[in-house]
Amino acid sequence: MPSKMDIFKIAGITVDVVLFTIEDGSLRVVLIQRDNEPYHGVRALPGGFMQENETADAAAARILREKAGVKDIYTEQLYTFSDLRRDPRGRVISITYFALVARDQINFKGSDLQAPALLPMYHLPHLAFDHKQILVYSLERLRAKLEYTNIVYSLLTPTFTLTQLQQAYEIILDRKLDKRNFRKKYLSLGLIQATKQFERGGRRRPAVLYRFKAQEIEQLKKFF
Amino acid sequence: MPSKMDIFKIAGITVDVVLFTIEDGSLRVVLIQRDNEPYHGVRALPGGFMQENETADAAAARILREKAGVKDIYTEQLYTFSDLRRDPRGRVISITYFALVARDQINFKGSDLQAPALLPMYHLPHLAFDHKQILVYSLERLRAKLEYTNIVYSLLTPTFTLTQLQQAYEIILDRKLDKRNFRKKYLSLGLIQATKQFERGGRRRPAVLYRFKAQEIEQLKKFF
Repeated sequence: MPSKMDIFKIAGITVDVVLFTIEDGSLRVVLIQRDNEPYHGVRALPGGFMQENETADAAAARILREKAGVKDIYTEQLYTFSDLRRDPRGRVISITYFALVARDQINFKGSDLQAPALLPMYHLPHLAFDHKQILVYSLERLRAKLEYTNIVYSLLTPTFTLTQLQQAYEIILDRKLDKRNFRKKYLSLGLIQATKQFERGGRRRPAVLYRFKAQEIEQLKKFF
Repeated sequence: MPSKMDIFKIAGITVDVVLFTIEDGSLRVVLIQRDNEPYHGVRALPGGFMQENETADAAAARILREKAGVKDIYTEQLYTFSDLRRDPRGRVISITYFALVARDQINFKGSDLQAPALLPMYHLPHLAFDHKQILVYSLERLRAKLEYTNIVYSLLTPTFTLTQLQQAYEIILDRKLDKRNFRKKYLSLGLIQATKQFERGGRRRPAVLYRFKAQEIEQLKKFF
C-alpha cells in the first residue's frame, strides 16, 4: 500500500468527455465555460471529479447527462492523462472519454449546465488545462476508427443518403473523397442497406435513404 | 475540488502491464507471483503503485524494467479499470498498458523481481484482482491492431522469414491462415523488404530473410 503521504498528494481523479457531432458541415465539439477557478471563464471539456461510488464509465455517463444534456450515446474510454503539471491544483489525473452523437440528439437543457456550446473543432478557442491536447488525441482516434470501423453510424440520423454519409467522412477526415470510389467501397462492405424511403425536398432527383444494419460498433473488415 | 473525504477514499492508483511475447509457438504473457497480501502467492500482472513524481507512462516503463527486466520496447496505454470492488484494499484504480517484445529481449535478471514467468495466454492460472479481465481485453486489442497496423514487428526479431511472420499472425489470431493468400496480401502492403540474407540451418531450401521498413507502429492501409 502507498504511505499516507502518497495518498495525500493525489488531489483527485477527473473524468473529461470529448463529445463530437456534425453541424452545418463542420465537426464540432461540446465545450463548457468554467464557472470557477482555476481557468474561470475559459472554455473546457465537460468534466468533473470521479465520485467515490462510481466507475469511470458511470462518471462519463453522468457528465454527459448533467453537462451536455445527452444520454445513451456511443461512448468509449479514450486515454488517461497523467502529466505532473496538467492541473495547477496539484496531482490530478484525467480519465478521458470520447462520445459521438447526431446533432439532433443534443439538448442543452438542464440545471447543471455551464454554458455549453458546439464549437468547431478546426477553430478552437483557448482551452483550460491540457484539453487542447486531449482534443487533438481524440481527433486522431476518431479518424483512425473511421478507417476500420462503422463508427460513423453514431454521427448520422437513423436514415441518411449516400451523400450525407460521404460528407460525414469528408468532414472528419478534412479532405474530399472521390464520389464513385467512396460509394463502391462503402457499399461493398455490406454495412448499410437501402430503405424504401427517399430524401424529401430539394430540387434534384430524390435520393434513396440508407440505414446501418447494426447500431453498434463493429470492425469494418478482417484483412487477414 | 473534492472534499477531504473524497480524497481519503482513493486508496491508490496502480499501473499494471501486460507484456506479450511469442515462445515455442505460443502466445505468452509475463506474470509475477505476488509476495505480499492481498493475493499472496497468486500470479498477477507486473504492476505497482504510481509514484508522486511520475506519469503513468513513466510508471509503466519502471515496472517493465524492474519487474520484467526489459526496456525500450513497444508499449501503449490500454485502458483504465475502475470497478468499485476490484481491489480488496479499497478504491484502487489501475491504468493498464500493453507491451510487445521478441522473446530474446526479455531478461529476467534484477533485484526487484517477483518470480516472473512466461505463461501461455490460452492456459492461464488463477490470477489476482481483475487481471484475467485485463488480459482478455489486451488480447482483443492486440488482435484488432494486428488487422490494421504493422504492430507484429515488435514481436519478431529484426530479420525473419515469411513463415515466421505468418506463424506470429496465426499464434495471435489462434487460427490457421492460407499461406499463398497471406503472402500475397502482406507483400502488397509494402511494409517489409527482402534482405540479402537467408535463414541458416534446416533441411529445406533456405528462406529469404525479410525486415520491416519501419520499426515504429503505423496503420496498415487507408481504406477511404
